[in-house]
Amino acid sequence: MRVGYFQFAPAFGEVARNLELVTTRLATVQCDLMVLPELFASGYQFVSKEEVESLAEPVPDGATTKRLIELARDRHMHVVAGLPERQGKVCYNSAVLVGPAGLIGTYRKTHLFFEETLYFTPGDTGFTVWDIGSAKVGVLVCFDWLYPEAARTLALKGADILCHPSNLVLPHCPDAMVTRCLENRVFSVTANRIGSEERGGKERLTYIGASEVVTPRGRILHRAPRDQEDLTILDIDPTEARNKALNPYNDLLRDRRKDLYEL
Amino acid sequence: MRVGYFQFAPAFGEVARNLELVTTRLATVQCDLMVLPELFASGYQFVSKEEVESLAEPVPDGATTKRLIELARDRHMHVVAGLPERQGKVCYNSAVLVGPAGLIGTYRKTHLFFEETLYFTPGDTGFTVWDIGSAKVGVLVCFDWLYPEAARTLALKGADILCHPSNLVLPHCPDAMVTRCLENRVFSVTANRIGSEERGGKERLTYIGASEVVTPRGRILHRAPRDQEDLTILDIDPTEARNKALNPYNDLLRDRRKDLYEL
Repeated sequence: MRVGYFQFAPAFGEVARNLELVTTRLATVQCDLMVLPELFASGYQFVSKEEVESLAEPVPDGATTKRLIELARDRHMHVVAGLPERQGKVCYNSAVLVGPAGLIGTYRKTHLFFEETLYFTPGDTGFTVWDIGSAKVGVLVCFDWLYPEAARTLALKGADILCHPSNLVLPHCPDAMVTRCLENRVFSVTANRIGSEERGGKERLTYIGASEVVTPRGRILHRAPRDQEDLTILDIDPTEARNKALNPYNDLLRDRRKDLYEL
Repeated sequence: MRVGYFQFAPAFGEVARNLELVTTRLATVQCDLMVLPELFASGYQFVSKEEVESLAEPVPDGATTKRLIELARDRHMHVVAGLPERQGKVCYNSAVLVGPAGLIGTYRKTHLFFEETLYFTPGDTGFTVWDIGSAKVGVLVCFDWLYPEAARTLALKGADILCHPSNLVLPHCPDAMVTRCLENRVFSVTANRIGSEERGGKERLTYIGASEVVTPRGRILHRAPRDQEDLTILDIDPTEARNKALNPYNDLLRDRRKDLYEL
């Protein structure tokens, strides 16, 4: 199957413009699964709860999810992408999974980072694996990477691929995703953004790019530059993630010693 | 406090010779905590259960533990080191923690790798944290690195330092320990061995060296060469591992979402 990501620099608050840019850049792609960054159409650095509420959208009836579904239908692909989700007065830092037939699932970010904690409600969806035909996929959003329990839960539920919309500013995640893939024998597709934001007198955030696709053996198939737009699509065999035998004696998940973990 | 490791090439089955080499090399060290490799005095590549039984030792009355206690007493330090432990007819791939006053604790390797599964009984000790005064320490042995549950259990129990006797042959662990330290905000001291073994017609095992000390912020303070003996001792501040605040909004362990993990 063909999986990819689109790394770019969203313009804060310019939802229509960001959606247009993504639609244009992906107009001719051929792939099964495309991952876009966290909050890819809204921008990241919110400075008030009101601002979040004004940019957050219902799912699946908001403009962003509708456009993603159109894109999925046009390109016969699945898309995982991050957006601020509004449900009543509550806003989540969410990611949707859409396919040609519409919305498949929503993941609400579990581990909120830094000032996201001021503006978003912590996710309540837990970790779900969806079967999109070509593979079984799970979603993590950005900072969820730091918590091994998140990727582990998805692997135990049968995920072949961790789809990972991100807006990374700290340097560690790209290398850590190699560990996440090794320790779970899964693929990961991290779609990060580039550029920077400095809004409302807050500290400038510079996003580190370095989007990547990593294999269950911990091989980085491709890592994007730190500061350039990058659309990458690669062939992978998702069944590689289903063989958890490390050698004739060890099976990664079977060999867990749940009786001895105190988590 | 001063922590270190001694990376070297044990000679298989030559327990007295390996103990002598370690005693000589460490004769003048000044440190609080020294970590030696997995199975540092026996060698690693056993080819039969009988061979394991002949080299395994009771703890603390075997020659290896006794010598380690002498060393700890002479140098006023604590030592973590791996050895084949015999308890009746059962053999474990264990590591002992000893101090000037004698044996403090024994950890029996939880996750056995490859043909170790033929020769050793999986550990039954679980993961313990010991307070050695200068720091709280936990022990992982080699392949335990791959299971995030192991390091996490130790961090939740208050470990400042993961002491990690190893005999690594695959390339991924040194980088993965950076992830283990970041995701738990702890130090790690991995003591690996060098050299190779090719015994009883089995495939040659070449050990990768690259012993290292990593900080809670994921900085590699020192990484040893792949193929040379290396005695490294460094100053660290173990209290760095006790502040789990990542920023004013995030506390690493408090922010876990146990209700959403399915482990």
